[in-house]
Amino acid sequence: MCYCHLTGRDVSVEHGLVESSERVSFQVEPGRYRHWRLMVDGAVATLAMDVDERGGLREGYDLKLNSYDLGVDIELYDAVQRLRFEHPEVHAVVLTSVKPKVFSAGANIRMLAASPHEWKVNFCKFTNETRNGMEDATAHSGQAYLAALNGTASGGGYELALACEHIMLIDDRSSAVSLPELPLLGVLPGTGGLTRMVDKRRVRRDLADYFATKSEGLGGAQAVAWKLVDEVVPRPRWEETVAERAAEFAARSGRPSGAPGITLAPLAKQRDEDRIGYPHVTAELDRAAGTATITITGPERGAPGGVPEIHEQGCGFWTLAVTRELDDLILDLRTNETEVGTWVIKTAGDPERVLAHDQLLADSTSDWLVNEIVHYLKRTLKRLDVTSRSLIALIEPGSCFAGSLFEVALAADRAYMLAGVFEDVDPDAAPAAVTLGEMNLGLLPMGNGLTRLQTRFLDDDATAAILRDRAGKPLEAEAAAGLGLVTFAPDDIDWDEEVRIAVEERASFSPDALTGLEANCRFAGPETMETKIFGRLTAWQNWIFNRPNASGPDGALRKFGTGQRAQFDRKRV
Amino acid sequence: MCYCHLTGRDVSVEHGLVESSERVSFQVEPGRYRHWRLMVDGAVATLAMDVDERGGLREGYDLKLNSYDLGVDIELYDAVQRLRFEHPEVHAVVLTSVKPKVFSAGANIRMLAASPHEWKVNFCKFTNETRNGMEDATAHSGQAYLAALNGTASGGGYELALACEHIMLIDDRSSAVSLPELPLLGVLPGTGGLTRMVDKRRVRRDLADYFATKSEGLGGAQAVAWKLVDEVVPRPRWEETVAERAAEFAARSGRPSGAPGITLAPLAKQRDEDRIGYPHVTAELDRAAGTATITITGPERGAPGGVPEIHEQGCGFWTLAVTRELDDLILDLRTNETEVGTWVIKTAGDPERVLAHDQLLADSTSDWLVNEIVHYLKRTLKRLDVTSRSLIALIEPGSCFAGSLFEVALAADRAYMLAGVFEDVDPDAAPAAVTLGEMNLGLLPMGNGLTRLQTRFLDDDATAAILRDRAGKPLEAEAAAGLGLVTFAPDDIDWDEEVRIAVEERASFSPDALTGLEANCRFAGPETMETKIFGRLTAWQNWIFNRPNASGPDGALRKFGTGQRAQFDRKRV
Repeated sequence: MCYCHLTGRDVSVEHGLVESSERVSFQVEPGRYRHWRLMVDGAVATLAMDVDERGGLREGYDLKLNSYDLGVDIELYDAVQRLRFEHPEVHAVVLTSVKPKVFSAGANIRMLAASPHEWKVNFCKFTNETRNGMEDATAHSGQAYLAALNGTASGGGYELALACEHIMLIDDRSSAVSLPELPLLGVLPGTGGLTRMVDKRRVRRDLADYFATKSEGLGGAQAVAWKLVDEVVPRPRWEETVAERAAEFAARSGRPSGAPGITLAPLAKQRDEDRIGYPHVTAELDRAAGTATITITGPERGAPGGVPEIHEQGCGFWTLAVTRELDDLILDLRTNETEVGTWVIKTAGDPERVLAHDQLLADSTSDWLVNEIVHYLKRTLKRLDVTSRSLIALIEPGSCFAGSLFEVALAADRAYMLAGVFEDVDPDAAPAAVTLGEMNLGLLPMGNGLTRLQTRFLDDDATAAILRDRAGKPLEAEAAAGLGLVTFAPDDIDWDEEVRIAVEERASFSPDALTGLEANCRFAGPETMETKIFGRLTAWQNWIFNRPNASGPDGALRKFGTGQRAQFDRKRV
Repeated sequence: MCYCHLTGRDVSVEHGLVESSERVSFQVEPGRYRHWRLMVDGAVATLAMDVDERGGLREGYDLKLNSYDLGVDIELYDAVQRLRFEHPEVHAVVLTSVKPKVFSAGANIRMLAASPHEWKVNFCKFTNETRNGMEDATAHSGQAYLAALNGTASGGGYELALACEHIMLIDDRSSAVSLPELPLLGVLPGTGGLTRMVDKRRVRRDLADYFATKSEGLGGAQAVAWKLVDEVVPRPRWEETVAERAAEFAARSGRPSGAPGITLAPLAKQRDEDRIGYPHVTAELDRAAGTATITITGPERGAPGGVPEIHEQGCGFWTLAVTRELDDLILDLRTNETEVGTWVIKTAGDPERVLAHDQLLADSTSDWLVNEIVHYLKRTLKRLDVTSRSLIALIEPGSCFAGSLFEVALAADRAYMLAGVFEDVDPDAAPAAVTLGEMNLGLLPMGNGLTRLQTRFLDDDATAAILRDRAGKPLEAEAAAGLGLVTFAPDDIDWDEEVRIAVEERASFSPDALTGLEANCRFAGPETMETKIFGRLTAWQNWIFNRPNASGPDGALRKFGTGQRAQFDRKRV
């Protein structure tokens, strides 16, 4: 099977990534890929980069040498997702390039140089998430990624390889891996490269230092000795060795062999200026207030009778459907609505049905599809965790903050829960309640490796025991606040005022300082490679991107390719 | 005993902190304090803040309400150091204020607003190091710090309290603790506040979020319930309760009672434009090249015969003397020589004597003074780790990179070691060698909790075992490079060229990108509160400080106190 349309790439194809002249869409499908070829051959898939030079998401740059922009990465993300859901038979994925002598030159430099700060940062965040997703597939899906570098991998190209479980480099006396960002552009490798070198691959720190200053990079035996790649393979034995290695990794997989995949059908999305609607998720934008009010709707019916029915429902199964919608919404708002700084999150529906769906999933994680759904939900909640927007959960009567949906409230910076009911609206309504369930107790860890409850009550075993005991029992506002599960529990009289102040106040603060506050408060406890990439590395890169030495008129990023040298302010900070 | 000169503060005192019109000195002594009163009463010392409004290190701001600048913190650092070395009898330290109703308003805002970026960042780094030092005294010296907040503690004032083991707040219906940086200034609490709240004190993340947006802060029972302070005490019982609590903490100390301290005599320092000299450490500055060549000299004689002799030698004991000199040099270069971006580090002397000093210390850590010396060396090496300068160690014949001094090479970004000798200089010299010793194997951990060897060879138990086996044996270049202890081992023919290129190249790169590279490569492995403060929090703050929303003409930091509102670019990044 090959999704690529080899003959269509030279004619003018409706790209589909840009919905309006400005807005970026994250919805794509293999038949519309311009930059990748996805080929499935039994247990091994090959995902080959073949970037269309003229296929940039924006005007003003050519994507030469398999350099990439956000559009290329959106297709990669789509392919990684589809391999997990549509191809249970794929047990190993070979990432390679169609172009001779070049794997990938990394993120396109002219694109970076021309992009505003928030675009650069958001682009790096998304590429990091996609690379983490490849590692997640390797670790949790039995779909190991192998990088088959048939030519030079520079910068983000090498960082893409670093996200693979195994890196093979062709030994042809010219191909190399490199991170030339620092010497050539005056910025850091921005997609996890430094962290993956020293933390994941255990490249010695002084060797990493040298490597990151050597723009031409390293190849051959030295690249293996320094742990930059796992093996180098002479050209004559290249294809055979790649196939051998892929087969070895595939053989270790626990994924089923004969199972049919499910189809990820296009999302039913309606998008206009002030509203984004999907079947289970909506967002109402108030640009003047700087808010998006997101409402997630619970299941419209009870949980399926068993795993076979989940397979039958496919992408219509509530948990998967709502996760896909939420994932797309997060990406849409993050990329297209940078001035909407506060997301107010609500739910509506029957909490029992949410818990029933959760329980079915929790009881069936040995099924490959259930496993995929749970990990996808986990990744989507992690995407929320690293989103640079203030997240405020509002828990009202009629909501269904239970189990997996209560994780959204735990991901929020604050949760307001109404004590009692809105007397003027529906005095006979049942008061709002939240319910803990199986999904809150381990299946949906954050990037730091802890659950959101563990992070919230760090090392507090007594509270953890109490919370486990409360699982399955609806907790009204006073009880939830008493247990520390929500931030404030105002009653009907105070509700409007308290919520209004919280939201208005948020809009009045420095957006940058809020981003820093949230990034520091959300991740108490241990750090992992992932939190280091999003916390430490990203923050340094943000700073560097923002400095005149990189982005000023005489900065390295702006001077690259002009033949002129960058002018640096030499002060160390 | 009281070091303060109460009568002298109103007359014009030579401040002493500014050596020239520009350069900052970190050498001070209690008799010259302008901002603190240090009182020792048996096992309890009181360190009381009494900032001289007109005593700012620079012109242009008044230090009202016990707000502070670098000069205030230099005195605090001095007091913390002297308490450890000069006062073994002090088992608990009460940090409080002399001023009525105010503990401290934190870092002076006008000073911050008027300071260039690199000054702000360097200032925050030093204050963080001093606060970590207080925690180090609490954890490792039996000198617990208690914050006795007799009035409001805002911003950096509260962050200072957060570095204490126990926080007491007076309950007078007006005193509060607060972190108003975000709402008032559009920046983060920059001295570890956010990390200490959520990671050290386990303040719940949503409460931390609320607290950090509430400029007036919180006091009374709510501050206790939220874990922001440990206890609130009504005014009538204040002094008695503080004394009680200090006595309780002092009673738990393992420090001796009758032992005499040693005196930290003024450093014999010679400083001119291009050279900084101490008895055991020198730095030659080459401003055109952007380098400082630092040479550390080994002991001029053998190790003392035992612990009593260390006490006798006091601050003349080699390890302590060289540590103090190196500490002062790091601070001097960091603060006064921001354009000197590369530090080339050499040693000269007899490695056997270094190892003998190390061994005596390692065998005697139960002695209070030995304990202090080892922890001080540890803190000074940590200061090197977080220094935003490229560190290149050169290991040549005649050097003494052994044990504790080899840690300096391990702290470097790269180490070049000569294979053989310089034929033209001294063909009969013994080739350069490095030697591992006790000090490399656990006594001098980095901020991440691991030794530099453990960080260098992360989770590599096989190499760790080999290295332990090599301890005490001099390793020449080939062996050292083979074991991964040094980066490169060129011979006489290549040496000059390789070293020259490394140094020149460093000077040609973006200083910001180098700072980011080094910050990310130096700390592989686990993260701690300390590395989070220096890695995650500092990087975010750097970014925020640098953004127009904080520091631009209409930014919050610049508009504070003008009566005008800041104008924010509302885009989230």
